[in-house]
Amino acid sequence: MNDAIRQVTHVQNIRYDKEREALYIIDQSLLPNEERELRLETLEEMVEAIRSLRVRGAPAIGICAAYCLYVLARSIDEEDPDAFLSRLRDYASALNASRPTAVNLAWALGEMETAAASHAGEPRPRLLEALYERAEAIHRDDIAKCAAISEYGLSLLHEGDGVLTHCNAGPLATSRYGTAQGPFFLAAERGMHIRVFADETRPLLQGARLTSYELHRAGVDVTLICDNMASMVMKNGWVQACFVGCDRVAANGDTANKIGTSGVAILAKHYGIPLYVLGPTSTIDLRCPDGAHIPIELRDPEEIKTLWYEKPMALPGVKCYNPSFDVTDHELIAGIVTEKGICRPPYTQSLAELF
Amino acid sequence: MNDAIRQVTHVQNIRYDKEREALYIIDQSLLPNEERELRLETLEEMVEAIRSLRVRGAPAIGICAAYCLYVLARSIDEEDPDAFLSRLRDYASALNASRPTAVNLAWALGEMETAAASHAGEPRPRLLEALYERAEAIHRDDIAKCAAISEYGLSLLHEGDGVLTHCNAGPLATSRYGTAQGPFFLAAERGMHIRVFADETRPLLQGARLTSYELHRAGVDVTLICDNMASMVMKNGWVQACFVGCDRVAANGDTANKIGTSGVAILAKHYGIPLYVLGPTSTIDLRCPDGAHIPIELRDPEEIKTLWYEKPMALPGVKCYNPSFDVTDHELIAGIVTEKGICRPPYTQSLAELF
Repeated sequence: MNDAIRQVTHVQNIRYDKEREALYIIDQSLLPNEERELRLETLEEMVEAIRSLRVRGAPAIGICAAYCLYVLARSIDEEDPDAFLSRLRDYASALNASRPTAVNLAWALGEMETAAASHAGEPRPRLLEALYERAEAIHRDDIAKCAAISEYGLSLLHEGDGVLTHCNAGPLATSRYGTAQGPFFLAAERGMHIRVFADETRPLLQGARLTSYELHRAGVDVTLICDNMASMVMKNGWVQACFVGCDRVAANGDTANKIGTSGVAILAKHYGIPLYVLGPTSTIDLRCPDGAHIPIELRDPEEIKTLWYEKPMALPGVKCYNPSFDVTDHELIAGIVTEKGICRPPYTQSLAELF
Repeated sequence: MNDAIRQVTHVQNIRYDKEREALYIIDQSLLPNEERELRLETLEEMVEAIRSLRVRGAPAIGICAAYCLYVLARSIDEEDPDAFLSRLRDYASALNASRPTAVNLAWALGEMETAAASHAGEPRPRLLEALYERAEAIHRDDIAKCAAISEYGLSLLHEGDGVLTHCNAGPLATSRYGTAQGPFFLAAERGMHIRVFADETRPLLQGARLTSYELHRAGVDVTLICDNMASMVMKNGWVQACFVGCDRVAANGDTANKIGTSGVAILAKHYGIPLYVLGPTSTIDLRCPDGAHIPIELRDPEEIKTLWYEKPMALPGVKCYNPSFDVTDHELIAGIVTEKGICRPPYTQSLAELF
């Protein structure tokens, strides 16, 4: 079991090779059929990789963007500190615009800009080293946070429990254990049996391609279902809790996560099953009062209409609505699990106390 | 608009050519990319066509099975009436076993067997003619029932309403108008604007491939969404009612329909939106006390795991749960719309009064 785990955690979704001065990501759009690394060198490649979900998952996007900004900083040939910072800000803006919903992206870029500003007057190698260290610290920090989140999450489960999860917030979406799926890897390492039901998560099937892939490889008991089967699985009594990730949590606990999460939450409430949101505190956006203030990304209708962009599944003229996220009302959330502990309602109070 | 409608209703999903003595179906598994007729001659072809959803939709399966039994009856070369009936019963059993959930299949086959029994002693041409007439009557009857259901369904809607629908219960699943989607065709014919949101309906995408296809061709305002987007569409206030079909309705109103229907019903209840079940009275099974007594068909995991049986979307070893239907609790249903009128709760009473 531990070998399997080690194998999974060794699939490093984001890797900076300091010797070659090169940033690599696993191209997640090719999984589960192919495990291929992709080198990101230009801003265009980086934006495309984020937008096309070659790298995805709120924490992973943040980590990747931090390294991206470091790579881009190395290419800036401005002597003047202000000109350098201005160019860096432009790069950060472009990266930030690649996906609007996840707050980690903006957060990580902000951290990098702050580091740059505080070292702007220093010799270029020293400044670049500071940026690299900040990116690496964000990465290292996420690993530690995911481990802590996984521990807190696991404390909510009992031997033999069934847990329904949606989308992917495992090692590929974060670093090492992951958030929403982290407790399952931890349970497997400790010989605890948890039965996971993974929503396939249309349209891009992250649950099938990534979550069931990661969990199955780690020896976790995972059953893949279509999103519309969650109600039946809950009705069958197979599920004692729902664990989902988050892309942005508002001050009142309203949570933006992969489209379909709010539906899972409503079903869970109907069947009396607690739903937990798992994510690092960097996902909590106290400046955002509630879910109505979270921008929701709308994506290409072809994601729905053409099965994997290859085979048409609807007439060309058919309209589509393709939001990438939805907002789950805080009243449907039993707890928000962070690296600092588990927040309970009322969230306006418990979330604020984290900071 | 009427031309478009005529075009759609002229796509005849099941067609018996009396001159050629041949039964044809539109192979629905090829839609929307190809409109191809398939001739059914042998029991094996018939069972395969039903099991592989080349013909699907509870009423359409019933109609098709009736014609199938007529075709098979023509091939029985037993002189003795009892031997003939026995062979016919064997064929009916084999057809009935092809899909377990829809009650229309068993109902239509039962009607054909009754017709055969009451004409068993008559000369073979007379007996066969009686069987053909019964099959045609079932077909004709369904057209009339669908028209009536569509009228009653439309009476529940107002100009400009948005309606969410799941799976396909339109002309392809029935005959002419359809049941759950019938009111939308009727509205279009009358120049009434209804905005339809069609769940794509995983795993086999009947909502994308068939419902959005039929409605778009008929000039109906249809927007295709993934199943997991229904919550967001409802939250946006875009939907004033949900219309779904049914494969079997128990005496207490519990309704088996395409997997995901119960989830739509729970979401609708959460958002205060009425959900209506539309179907002919032949779908009501008073001998079945409640949903727990409805057999639920489990289908091939590859329907989920391999996108359109072509591209793997999960590792080969990953387990899948693939129920084809679920049961919606009668408490979640605002009304059951039949060709005889709209039944309201308590259903134990209102459904019994239909018969």
